[in-house]
Amino acid sequence: MHILIIGAAGMVGRKLTERLAADGRLGNAEVSALTLVDVVEPQHPAGFTGEVRTEAVDVSEPGVAERLIAARPDAVFHLAAIVSGEAEADFDKGYRINLDGTRFLFDAIRLEGMKAPYKPRVVFTSSIAVFGAPFPEKIGDEFFNTPLTSYGTQKAIGELLLSDYSRRGFFDGIGIRLPTICIRPGAPNKAASGFFSNILREPLVGKEAVLPVSEDVRHWHASPRAAVGFLLHAATMDLDRLGWRRNLSMPGLSATVGEQIEALRRAAGDKAVALIRREPDPFIAKMVAGWARDFDASRAASLGFTAERSFDEIIRVHIEDELGGSLPA
Amino acid sequence: MHILIIGAAGMVGRKLTERLAADGRLGNAEVSALTLVDVVEPQHPAGFTGEVRTEAVDVSEPGVAERLIAARPDAVFHLAAIVSGEAEADFDKGYRINLDGTRFLFDAIRLEGMKAPYKPRVVFTSSIAVFGAPFPEKIGDEFFNTPLTSYGTQKAIGELLLSDYSRRGFFDGIGIRLPTICIRPGAPNKAASGFFSNILREPLVGKEAVLPVSEDVRHWHASPRAAVGFLLHAATMDLDRLGWRRNLSMPGLSATVGEQIEALRRAAGDKAVALIRREPDPFIAKMVAGWARDFDASRAASLGFTAERSFDEIIRVHIEDELGGSLPA
Repeated sequence: MHILIIGAAGMVGRKLTERLAADGRLGNAEVSALTLVDVVEPQHPAGFTGEVRTEAVDVSEPGVAERLIAARPDAVFHLAAIVSGEAEADFDKGYRINLDGTRFLFDAIRLEGMKAPYKPRVVFTSSIAVFGAPFPEKIGDEFFNTPLTSYGTQKAIGELLLSDYSRRGFFDGIGIRLPTICIRPGAPNKAASGFFSNILREPLVGKEAVLPVSEDVRHWHASPRAAVGFLLHAATMDLDRLGWRRNLSMPGLSATVGEQIEALRRAAGDKAVALIRREPDPFIAKMVAGWARDFDASRAASLGFTAERSFDEIIRVHIEDELGGSLPA
Repeated sequence: MHILIIGAAGMVGRKLTERLAADGRLGNAEVSALTLVDVVEPQHPAGFTGEVRTEAVDVSEPGVAERLIAARPDAVFHLAAIVSGEAEADFDKGYRINLDGTRFLFDAIRLEGMKAPYKPRVVFTSSIAVFGAPFPEKIGDEFFNTPLTSYGTQKAIGELLLSDYSRRGFFDGIGIRLPTICIRPGAPNKAASGFFSNILREPLVGKEAVLPVSEDVRHWHASPRAAVGFLLHAATMDLDRLGWRRNLSMPGLSATVGEQIEALRRAAGDKAVALIRREPDPFIAKMVAGWARDFDASRAASLGFTAERSFDEIIRVHIEDELGGSLPA
């Protein structure tokens, strides 16, 4: 099986690559080749014996998607995106990468299938940013998409295209709306949601972090490990179970910033909590106010997707996967 | 006031043009100029004393939208679309006209506004085809968009773009989901929904019509006159009342084909009804089964949009507007 990952150098893309390399299989199929692309060249995964190609390309450039798809990968993970803050700040870039890039990819698959039968699995990472306030306290699976960011708009359009291309038989697609990934490892990116991770990741290793919103802000989270689990399940499950409603909200954990902080206190004590510096940022607070806080993800749950149930668990996953299993002394 | 109508040669476009020409004003503003474009050259409206430009152009061709918008119309009606049956049959054409054409137009306005402040009113005709079965018997304003046609997908994407471009301040836009227009005057077009009109319009003047579905098919209707009323109200109302949820379902009449036929019988007798020939068409029946049947349009009603309340009224409007006020002897 040949797997193409677009956006392989991003955090979720790296974790997915590492997992596929470690497993050596996707579902029942042996992974014989990985093609890893991103705007910066992705790293080769350690310990993988199959063929690996890596490339720094932009799928929103004409011709790039066609070339990648000409190799006829069996499964395509489309994770590439300009994040919310950047898509809001740079209108053209957001639409080019998040809308045109996605459409070029989907169209390349369609056109490849016109040469000879070809119908890969396509897993697209959407976002809860497709929803915009006001919404119910728990957002159900049939609530409408009225995004309040350009990023959310672009993701909602990607979902519509994915459903239509699947319905027309061009590929077998699923769009999964990831919760905010928490705790994101590594350095902060430009996502306006970065603070949800920063206020845990940094204090866990004795560093300061900035909290730009109030403690009563409620949000929807899942760990990087859970996100990889969503992607693998999406790539292997029977999609006929979805009908033509090919996009759905993944399960997650609804928690307030205050609840995050109390879980941090249980894991690392008062001295860690003291490292959180309050610096209210009206720009971020305004964006966050338009985001969803809680979901009824029963459809995803009934289809076998699973996530963490407490912030203690999310912090434990981070310590296991990123800090070698224990906090620094 | 300068008004640009894209899709001015279509049925709704012609009726809107005639009404604007007859009124000589839009809301409180005098209409000084009309620019009428379509893929075929629109006709000059009778009795209008202002400036009229007509042009046969395709707004999905590069550069066309920029040129039209360079004249800085105060209001833009974007009515142009490939209809549902044709967009399903010709994938590329549907996406080119319905998605690219709409995006080019919206982007032309955005780029014009970067040269010097410019923020026109934009009225976009969307469709109830943004909804896809299964849905509740009455579709509410917050129900999600899961279209089952490429046309519906393209309209849903247009709605998302319109909301985002309005939110970003590039124009002041509103998207109105028209019910199926009934009774469409003139010759049948390629819309799969054409029979809803054919079975009334043709028998009213003594001609045969084909009914491809069963009498218990329920659908959602408004007259051409009501549609023009929606457009004028959308072009003049205070859009701040909508917030950023700039797209909404227009009011209409939910009725079965059987109820249509009984209204025909009341208007024109058994001999008219006898002119309806049953010819079941599985392709059309399958498409129609995916369409919405009834709506809760209370949001539109509360914002001042109004439509007919019976098929007797819809037939009366047709006789007044298309047949000179009475049926042929």
